[in-house]
Amino acid sequence: MNQVIETLLQHRSIRRFTDQSLDREQVETIVKSAQAASTSSFIQAYSIIGVTDQEKKDKLAELAGNQAYVAANGHFFVFCADLHRHKIVGDLESADVEDSIESTEKFMVALIDAALAAQNSAIAAESMGLGICYIGGIRNDLEAVKEVLKTPEHVIPLFGMAVGYPDQETDLKPRLPLEHIYMENEYQQDQSLFKKQLQDYNKTTSEYYEERTGGKRADTWTGQMAKMLGRKSRLYMKEFVENQKLNKK
Amino acid sequence: MNQVIETLLQHRSIRRFTDQSLDREQVETIVKSAQAASTSSFIQAYSIIGVTDQEKKDKLAELAGNQAYVAANGHFFVFCADLHRHKIVGDLESADVEDSIESTEKFMVALIDAALAAQNSAIAAESMGLGICYIGGIRNDLEAVKEVLKTPEHVIPLFGMAVGYPDQETDLKPRLPLEHIYMENEYQQDQSLFKKQLQDYNKTTSEYYEERTGGKRADTWTGQMAKMLGRKSRLYMKEFVENQKLNKK
Repeated sequence: MNQVIETLLQHRSIRRFTDQSLDREQVETIVKSAQAASTSSFIQAYSIIGVTDQEKKDKLAELAGNQAYVAANGHFFVFCADLHRHKIVGDLESADVEDSIESTEKFMVALIDAALAAQNSAIAAESMGLGICYIGGIRNDLEAVKEVLKTPEHVIPLFGMAVGYPDQETDLKPRLPLEHIYMENEYQQDQSLFKKQLQDYNKTTSEYYEERTGGKRADTWTGQMAKMLGRKSRLYMKEFVENQKLNKK
Repeated sequence: MNQVIETLLQHRSIRRFTDQSLDREQVETIVKSAQAASTSSFIQAYSIIGVTDQEKKDKLAELAGNQAYVAANGHFFVFCADLHRHKIVGDLESADVEDSIESTEKFMVALIDAALAAQNSAIAAESMGLGICYIGGIRNDLEAVKEVLKTPEHVIPLFGMAVGYPDQETDLKPRLPLEHIYMENEYQQDQSLFKKQLQDYNKTTSEYYEERTGGKRADTWTGQMAKMLGRKSRLYMKEFVENQKLNKK
């Protein structure tokens, strides 16, 4: 196994960091790595906002559901789906780009572009001995996040990423069985096999939690998911995104 | 610079492969690497379909706009946003998960999850000396792709990834200036600086194309983008996605 694959397979989220900040060179390496990712038809439909202002970090931590590690880390990045510069391109080139920019297709492109870039950042950071945690919690209240980061129309802050020197050890979380996630030639048509794989995975996850908590918790994956999905969170999103003039047509 | 960052920064798309297939171990390493990526609240909202049936590969190549390397490669993967298993979770746990699954929020989660996993696959493959190319072209006609891969409701094939032993040398494409993509504390408010950065980048890209084509082509980035966005492609996407019962509420 080479060093790259080792880095990938060793990923675990880190939620406590020392107070050492990243230096400029580290930040630039992380951003350059992001930029090196593939981008759909060269569109580069994302932006990255580094948040160094402590007041803003505190505010984002609060908005993300009081996650302390959003405020306390080595560097905090926010990855945005961004078609604002493409709107400007339309102005510069006197081209009618509005229908494209406001389409669901280009919204998908921007999300995918931003996520590919972010994952390169995560890998780059981890390869330097840093820890990372994605922060989807900023989507709790994007109206407020938008105020903090002053993002214009056609931009959606998608998630944060806390990066820093790890101050904790965490475990590798067991993933869904490979043969459940990976299929060949067509989607799994055998519903009973599909369900059996989920039930087998439930055993794996409940054993994982039991061991980790000394028997206090033995959640199954389907139980966790049902609870989370039952909460119906962030149902304001459709309207918010459309108000930013994305995902409209 | 460590070996991981070197791999990230050396990325370039490969569109011609030798006829050597990936072996099972390589495919599994690529899939396990995908699975090791972060996933929003452990939701794992994606699936990967490996396409080995040559007839299906030929069909997908045609649908993607006659891209030969979709049919001829070492292995072809399709990454799907997938909330189908979460629908099954709802059935297994007698939980009301429909509003969540059909929300724009969870559609975004699934897209991001799939893209993070895919990028790990890309990096893993490249670290093994393989080349990759993302294939957004499968989104030209997802109704037809859905037929080929037999994907159920709540699943969207997002993009393919052709992987294989490179049979060409390609150049690194210059990205947008780092200071344009990366901002600190708030989004760039200075519109004239923002535009100047795009114009500077136009020089970079037209020099790149000029050198690469021996003077035959000198496209600017804004010119390319205006042309592409002016085409208004794939405007059926909103309806298609909603028909799969995603991004509806």
